[in-house]
Amino acid sequence: MPTIQDAFRGKRVIITGGLGFIGSNLARRLVAYGAEVLLVDSLIPQYGGNTFNINGIEDNVHVNISDVRDRFGMSALIRDRDFLFNLAGQTSHMDSMTDPHTDLEINCRAQLSILEACREHNPDIRIVFASTRQIYGRPDYLPVDEKHLVRPVDVNGINKMAGEWYHILYHNVYGIRACALRLTNTIGPRMRIKDARQTFLGIWVRCVVEGKPFEVWGGEQRRDFTYVDDAVDAFLLAAADERAPGKIFNLGDEHVVSLRDLADMLVATTNGASYTVKQFPAERKRIDIGDYYGNYSLIKDTLGWEPKVALPEALAETVDFYREFLSEYL
Amino acid sequence: MPTIQDAFRGKRVIITGGLGFIGSNLARRLVAYGAEVLLVDSLIPQYGGNTFNINGIEDNVHVNISDVRDRFGMSALIRDRDFLFNLAGQTSHMDSMTDPHTDLEINCRAQLSILEACREHNPDIRIVFASTRQIYGRPDYLPVDEKHLVRPVDVNGINKMAGEWYHILYHNVYGIRACALRLTNTIGPRMRIKDARQTFLGIWVRCVVEGKPFEVWGGEQRRDFTYVDDAVDAFLLAAADERAPGKIFNLGDEHVVSLRDLADMLVATTNGASYTVKQFPAERKRIDIGDYYGNYSLIKDTLGWEPKVALPEALAETVDFYREFLSEYL
Repeated sequence: MPTIQDAFRGKRVIITGGLGFIGSNLARRLVAYGAEVLLVDSLIPQYGGNTFNINGIEDNVHVNISDVRDRFGMSALIRDRDFLFNLAGQTSHMDSMTDPHTDLEINCRAQLSILEACREHNPDIRIVFASTRQIYGRPDYLPVDEKHLVRPVDVNGINKMAGEWYHILYHNVYGIRACALRLTNTIGPRMRIKDARQTFLGIWVRCVVEGKPFEVWGGEQRRDFTYVDDAVDAFLLAAADERAPGKIFNLGDEHVVSLRDLADMLVATTNGASYTVKQFPAERKRIDIGDYYGNYSLIKDTLGWEPKVALPEALAETVDFYREFLSEYL
Repeated sequence: MPTIQDAFRGKRVIITGGLGFIGSNLARRLVAYGAEVLLVDSLIPQYGGNTFNINGIEDNVHVNISDVRDRFGMSALIRDRDFLFNLAGQTSHMDSMTDPHTDLEINCRAQLSILEACREHNPDIRIVFASTRQIYGRPDYLPVDEKHLVRPVDVNGINKMAGEWYHILYHNVYGIRACALRLTNTIGPRMRIKDARQTFLGIWVRCVVEGKPFEVWGGEQRRDFTYVDDAVDAFLLAAADERAPGKIFNLGDEHVVSLRDLADMLVATTNGASYTVKQFPAERKRIDIGDYYGNYSLIKDTLGWEPKVALPEALAETVDFYREFLSEYL
């Protein structure tokens, strides 16, 4: 029986945001599977790209430093590729409100350009787009499935919603085999910990490793988390499986925790960590969505994906990584 | 008891797409109500703007020929305005597929710029955005209400969805009093009849007036229609009513007809008109949504809007208009 590894051996893969958190973890797996991996990343300092993320696999990947907004460059890069993992994005919700046009350029317009290039020059490519559960907004019911209305609460959510739908549309109209994963909070080694632009957990982990108390804002909100290796599994399954194109899949986890629970779990994982609880800042509260956790039955039933790494283990792996490599991420 | 007229008397109003079909009909009403009306229109030949649309009210409105993509120009124009009717848009579904970036610039990016300008320079403005039922895609159930999932079937639908949500978001986050109307097929005097870019009915009416048979593609699809005067009522109510901001409202009509029924109705309205039935072209079929008609209970219950002009009367008024002014619309 063919394995997932077989689907990628010798295949030409391009990853946008390839020096970023999920992109680089995906690259590591694809290198291990024998794929020919091209990483595209803009290395914009506020985003997730970090050359150290490919430490140890530098000689097994090709790196092209460029921006997905570079329409002609992207058009040249996607030709002759078998798979596109389309992960480049502006991810900060706050930045999308202070600079909405940049968010639109990256999350909306660049996506349309990439798809136009695929349609014109590489219609046989397989594409997986990194979308986000953020586009659901404040849930009407929990866990949220893919039939839930989308009601974005920030500019980032609106632009990601558009970017996701360009992918689905180019499948429906032109037969481009694209699908989308609505990621929930993804955590693990190689995430941005310099600040909270990618995930609030980054800054928590940084504080823990630096021996400082971290701040929990609010703390009552309940969330689900995906360990990055599990997210990588989902991307690979979604790219390889013929049942995926045209579909939108939630990731999620049945293990739901409040942020306070998560903080306690992080403290239990580490020696001597501590935290303080702060009131939720007003400017964030306006775009917060309250409790969220996802129903991931569709991807489970369709592609057989489910999370394998439990949260305490995910936290321990993450903290261990940054204890070893902290200086590379500051 | 104050009338809707009182809400606009002496008020400073700006209409984007003001020389277009709905914009110019709205302008006429606002002039009659004693508003100070500024019309912004790009007069791009493929779109709906036509200087003849303000025939007879030229001296009672201000016209500023410019493009909503002109960020600084728009920012200057919206200052000190009490109301913005935001109707400028690329409306052709086919054009959005052949030139998706232009559609994005107008329906997506320009909307964000306009809202940013309002936030910065005129946060007290009232805004009504012209959205479209097209964003629902192929309905799961009929009539479609606002709780129906949005699943656009063309680039235009995706960009209009984003444009609509910027308005809702700027209400939710910044308190800008914006709302959106999801228009269904709007018909009436001053619609574009040169081609089918705005509505298929335009080209039907043109043929009828020119004494040629018109073509019905398919003909089984069932639709609802709004006469432009009724659409104008909805815009005015949505702008004036304090319960509207932040909301999305369907327009619609309980009188649902197949396109074949509509063709027969048009023939009955006129002397000697005839039509031929053609197969639905493949490139349009891919983005067609089948039957659609909207549930308009929300706007009825919230704002008291309902359609007043029946379809046969709407068709007769429309044909009469173009019999008189055909040469101005070719």
